[in-house]
Amino acid sequence: MASSPIWASRPKTRGLVLDLIRAARTISRVELATATGLTGATISEVVRELMGDGLVVEVGRGAPTGGKPRTMVQLNPLARYSVGVQLERNTCVIVVVDLAGRQVARTSFQGAALSPPEQALSLVASQVEALLATAAVDRDKVLGIGLVSYGPQDRRAGVLLTPQPTEDWLDYPVARRLAESVGLPVVLDNDAAAAAIGEYWMGAVDPRSTYGCIYMATGIGGGVVVAGEVYRGSSSNSVEIGHISIDVHGEECPCGNVGCLENYAGPSALVRQAVATPGLAQRLALDPAGADFLTEFARIAAAANTGDAEARGLVEQSARYLGAAAVTMTSLFDVDTIVLAGPSFAVAGSIYQSVIQQEVDRRMFARRAHRVRVVPSVNGSDAAAIGGAVLVLQSELTLGNPRPEDARPVPAS
Amino acid sequence: MASSPIWASRPKTRGLVLDLIRAARTISRVELATATGLTGATISEVVRELMGDGLVVEVGRGAPTGGKPRTMVQLNPLARYSVGVQLERNTCVIVVVDLAGRQVARTSFQGAALSPPEQALSLVASQVEALLATAAVDRDKVLGIGLVSYGPQDRRAGVLLTPQPTEDWLDYPVARRLAESVGLPVVLDNDAAAAAIGEYWMGAVDPRSTYGCIYMATGIGGGVVVAGEVYRGSSSNSVEIGHISIDVHGEECPCGNVGCLENYAGPSALVRQAVATPGLAQRLALDPAGADFLTEFARIAAAANTGDAEARGLVEQSARYLGAAAVTMTSLFDVDTIVLAGPSFAVAGSIYQSVIQQEVDRRMFARRAHRVRVVPSVNGSDAAAIGGAVLVLQSELTLGNPRPEDARPVPAS
Repeated sequence: MASSPIWASRPKTRGLVLDLIRAARTISRVELATATGLTGATISEVVRELMGDGLVVEVGRGAPTGGKPRTMVQLNPLARYSVGVQLERNTCVIVVVDLAGRQVARTSFQGAALSPPEQALSLVASQVEALLATAAVDRDKVLGIGLVSYGPQDRRAGVLLTPQPTEDWLDYPVARRLAESVGLPVVLDNDAAAAAIGEYWMGAVDPRSTYGCIYMATGIGGGVVVAGEVYRGSSSNSVEIGHISIDVHGEECPCGNVGCLENYAGPSALVRQAVATPGLAQRLALDPAGADFLTEFARIAAAANTGDAEARGLVEQSARYLGAAAVTMTSLFDVDTIVLAGPSFAVAGSIYQSVIQQEVDRRMFARRAHRVRVVPSVNGSDAAAIGGAVLVLQSELTLGNPRPEDARPVPAS
Repeated sequence: MASSPIWASRPKTRGLVLDLIRAARTISRVELATATGLTGATISEVVRELMGDGLVVEVGRGAPTGGKPRTMVQLNPLARYSVGVQLERNTCVIVVVDLAGRQVARTSFQGAALSPPEQALSLVASQVEALLATAAVDRDKVLGIGLVSYGPQDRRAGVLLTPQPTEDWLDYPVARRLAESVGLPVVLDNDAAAAAIGEYWMGAVDPRSTYGCIYMATGIGGGVVVAGEVYRGSSSNSVEIGHISIDVHGEECPCGNVGCLENYAGPSALVRQAVATPGLAQRLALDPAGADFLTEFARIAAAANTGDAEARGLVEQSARYLGAAAVTMTSLFDVDTIVLAGPSFAVAGSIYQSVIQQEVDRRMFARRAHRVRVVPSVNGSDAAAIGGAVLVLQSELTLGNPRPEDARPVPAS
């Protein structure tokens, strides 16, 4: 059998130390030595290197401990940047984030993926260029672009393995095409996996946590993070929770499965159910022929929030279906937290959170072992785009395996 | 944040080298250096240590390569042993395996877990003692006992978190009690996770594979292995596939969930369905009041094999339900292989394998990315007991983290 070297190498050491500094916000060299088990000398050398690269700076002194005051180090958030592009049927969101994952610029536009890919990616490229110009970010400090979209994908090849939204997109080299246009490395990844890792980078979860993310935009996706790394599986096509069957006797889905969660709980299902509810469509001025069902969905979610009983009933039903899937996620992945992320939780997020929490509390298999908390994402609607940018930061800086074979950024031409 | 040292330590190096030798069967020091990225000097030192401990022996010479002939090393399977105990409602299986995971002795008896735990564990302890005596294994070479049973569990505390089969078992210190009786360390683990890791140890899967296991005995469990380690999640209560909902509108299960797979596809469900099929119970001489539904289930499975159309229809329906759960497993974990293990696949395993393969081929989300193979376990009916013993070997010898905090064997008194 062949196995690649797994030993603590220089980049791995650097990456871990940088990740500890990121997570701690400020930390002393002594604390870094304790946390890693490395010698003080090694830590000093690694920190010197990180400071030389501008990634880390010294700040003030730690709290007095009786002995010699300790110099603290912290991340220099302005040392590097990355770009996140979330490409969806209806919306494209582009963000520029700094090393701390904080959004420094954002833009969005409609209908990108409805154009042929060539044209759509040209538009994305020009928007990325414009955003970098607006943000006045030094291009040399931009590590790359994380392009995130729905699955299935061939992550290594940088292509989508789905004829969504049109046949043109299937097998089209989206990552290479965008890299060529912008002149920056591009990694393709799953939008929900990206949304999941953002929570870790922002420090919103315990670093050792195994947690899941349910991501809802036009469709429903999922991601699981184990101790700071996205759970990948054999081909990075994992946690496709929108297409697990919640009814083995249900209707066939275009994906090939039957009774898929998305067709019961997703925004388009809710709009369909609302239109079929006598009087509701008229009361909420829904347009059943509307091109963008997310607008109609937001109207239903808003009505649920403001007390329309029927709208609320539909949202709660959708939340119960999502709760059933969340229970499956806990029974299979044994997560300790479920994060709700994405634009379709923006309006009625608190209803979703409360119903899903109830379902999980009541039905999860290992509830005698521990509780699972259901929480909103700290990155809200933009979680996938921000997460896409974070995946680039993580892959280049802290995972110690910059450009692994299965995620090699397509080089810019 | 606190983080434990993750650096390549001595035990970790030793463990990886030993695992490579195990997987390769015979391998040269040069090949070990290539596979690990370690220097020849380090490999020689580690191999010398392993030979000193009797774990590894030199054997003959490798194929001529033109240069100096290479001495090969291989595992010394008789250097260490471990015991696997699978404790179930109906059956207790005990095996002694050698370092290669090969069964050197086996016994089984009925109804253990129906007695009060104190009494049942005394019986298990005396059977373990008797088996070790029969096998004439030097007790100093026995690393410990892997006690495997159903979930949920508190693996660290060594207790079951379920009132199955009786209230007496809930929170009873099963691991400590058995350790005290036998005088060997005991680790408690999930039976299906154990069945899963056995495949890896026996070399039945690619070492880098992410694969799943569906384990069917009286109930249905699951396990996932990522590159040779059991996927754990936050509390080792993962992959409880028997209790995922396949019908959100289904009936409530004692576990708290609704529409659980086990109640549609498991042996007791099949017996119930057979009894409700006019004429079938009589034709197969089923005893609806039979205490041990596994006997009745085996009769149905045998009739399905020999061409009874109604029996076959029931088995195929059970297999389709399992197929739906297998599709969920692939969509969430992105496995490349699904292994069918446990005594309830023993009789009609080929029907199950073929139907589940069909369902997965047809319905899995990422089928454009890769195929998922459905295969029978190399350890068949005893997969859980053998896997329990393997978990001890792996934890003590190759994972480089002998007795991690969350799996510390309870010391013998």
